[in-house]
Amino acid sequence: MSSRIEQLEQSMNEKGLDSLLVTDPKHVYYLTGFASDPHERFLGLLLVRGEEPTLIVPALDAEAANAASSVKNIVTHNDTDNPYELLQRQFKRNIGTLGIEKEQLTVARYEELSAAVSAKQYADIGPLLRSMRVNKSPEEIKRMKHAMDLIEEVLRQGLKSVKTGVTEIEIVAELEYLMKQLGAQGPSFDTMVLSGPKTALPHGTPGDRKIQHGDLLMFDMGVYADGYASDITRTFAVGEVSPELKKIYNAVLEANLQGIQAIKPGVTLASVDKAARDAIEKAGYGPYFLHRLGHGLGMDVHEYPSVHGNNADLVQPGMVFTVEPGVYVAGLGGVRIEDDIFVTDNGVEVLTSYPKELIVLEG
Amino acid sequence: MSSRIEQLEQSMNEKGLDSLLVTDPKHVYYLTGFASDPHERFLGLLLVRGEEPTLIVPALDAEAANAASSVKNIVTHNDTDNPYELLQRQFKRNIGTLGIEKEQLTVARYEELSAAVSAKQYADIGPLLRSMRVNKSPEEIKRMKHAMDLIEEVLRQGLKSVKTGVTEIEIVAELEYLMKQLGAQGPSFDTMVLSGPKTALPHGTPGDRKIQHGDLLMFDMGVYADGYASDITRTFAVGEVSPELKKIYNAVLEANLQGIQAIKPGVTLASVDKAARDAIEKAGYGPYFLHRLGHGLGMDVHEYPSVHGNNADLVQPGMVFTVEPGVYVAGLGGVRIEDDIFVTDNGVEVLTSYPKELIVLEG
Repeated sequence: MSSRIEQLEQSMNEKGLDSLLVTDPKHVYYLTGFASDPHERFLGLLLVRGEEPTLIVPALDAEAANAASSVKNIVTHNDTDNPYELLQRQFKRNIGTLGIEKEQLTVARYEELSAAVSAKQYADIGPLLRSMRVNKSPEEIKRMKHAMDLIEEVLRQGLKSVKTGVTEIEIVAELEYLMKQLGAQGPSFDTMVLSGPKTALPHGTPGDRKIQHGDLLMFDMGVYADGYASDITRTFAVGEVSPELKKIYNAVLEANLQGIQAIKPGVTLASVDKAARDAIEKAGYGPYFLHRLGHGLGMDVHEYPSVHGNNADLVQPGMVFTVEPGVYVAGLGGVRIEDDIFVTDNGVEVLTSYPKELIVLEG
Repeated sequence: MSSRIEQLEQSMNEKGLDSLLVTDPKHVYYLTGFASDPHERFLGLLLVRGEEPTLIVPALDAEAANAASSVKNIVTHNDTDNPYELLQRQFKRNIGTLGIEKEQLTVARYEELSAAVSAKQYADIGPLLRSMRVNKSPEEIKRMKHAMDLIEEVLRQGLKSVKTGVTEIEIVAELEYLMKQLGAQGPSFDTMVLSGPKTALPHGTPGDRKIQHGDLLMFDMGVYADGYASDITRTFAVGEVSPELKKIYNAVLEANLQGIQAIKPGVTLASVDKAARDAIEKAGYGPYFLHRLGHGLGMDVHEYPSVHGNNADLVQPGMVFTVEPGVYVAGLGGVRIEDDIFVTDNGVEVLTSYPKELIVLEG
């Protein structure tokens, strides 16, 4: 059995949980090694104190589960079965507290689950899993570095296809082709290429706009590789850009550097956000930095911790998160520079390595 | 205001709902025209009887929401705000019943929501939205046909890169490049290319296996275009395949045809599944047809209805669903043939048009 399951079982004992049900496919993968996308079908890993762990999978994934899962007690269900009744039959005695994933389980599933198994109470195991996941192992960091190497190579090769007259979505197509060609599982989120005034939309959608001389050109993208995500943003100039855009660029770069410098174990996440935000405020763009500084990264492209000004949680060794200050001036343009960092025992390792000074692409 | 919101408001009146909160980003898009991916941030459309609809969006999406949403009363929240408190402030009087999306809202969010707004009770508006979405409009069918034309063109062009020695993931990279190049938003799910014995895994993952002479080669893929999904499976022979594989192919093709022929308004979905399943049983492969016959398709690649043997719901005009029988013999191989169909007033229109007879590709 995997040591992660043993760790989880130990936490169950400490927290007085009789049983727990893991339903997030990523957590099932994390704990058993079996990766799948069950869509709307039921997938669950059941741990009951003193019993063998049981993996409940859709019948059509049985073969794949048998091949990949460290949990060998596998129960399958067909599309015509009620998986919650099947789950209920796994319990050999009355259930006191059943741990569930409240941030993943929908209200509808919770109602079906609680009707079938009738535990005395339900506890959220989200924090438990989160505390395991936030502390990245060397093997996980290795995979994340690989995901970052891949996306940086995609960026490097992808820039070759940038020239005036090419559209944002044509560049996206090229980038995503490179991701697959270089061996990534796929993009870790919708690849974003924005140009000109559209860079002022922090969540804009690539479209038919053609790259023009004098544009800012923003890439925000990442890949999944071996189940782990990378996420990087770089903003380029296409030919000469205006002095104001350069000023914005420098403010964002300074914020990125100040944010990274502020990271060490024991400080609050809020203080890291503040260090970056102060640099942007000092440059006069405070009101244009519209979002938090960053987010955790790992098996999900957005995961714990959230790096924002109200988060008093402490920076811990083993954390990986993004540092991505941005300034967005409607009608003019925006700049974001995003790195992924790993918190070490006494400081920080920047996992992304792509240059950050303003690079001028040939228009 | 969009007529869909009016339709929803009328249903609210009929069901005695004071208010409802739409939280699925796809439903917000469906109702307001504003498409976004808020990740873990809160997005909600609030309808309160007698009040203007309110759209609550993350601050960084405000500009995009203003541009796209038919609902013009937009409230924004920053990453440091509690969006549920902000939601609570939208209510001008005590809340009786608040409709929520139980199939989308997580237990954690429900707990935050109910702590902040304290409605007397909560009702599930999933069935209401489902009944609207299941009845596809001509405009939606037009978009879906476009998504299907795109994926069939991807298949047509992608087949050119198939030859012995090429790996499954190399073909996937080529197909996903074509998707983007031809103008799709992207794949509607992980593109699946499986070869040889791996075709026996209904949910297998494309890998480094090289295409060999005598292989079956299965493509299961789709795209999103204008917010709507396509989903098609075709299985090919690479050079000559064994007589048993041909027999399996013919059984699956017959099941596909029988399934489609059984579709008309008023029959049960179970009867459609049965018509296809009977054909496979007759050929002796009953135990190897491991999954339901199909699933609804639209803004989601898997949506209502589920076409399986226990679903007594009736086939209705306006429905779009897949018909995808499959036979999977471990160690030998599998065949699946999937079409997308649209239920008309008196029968069925098959939206996919790619040939279904066994096509032998040059090894």
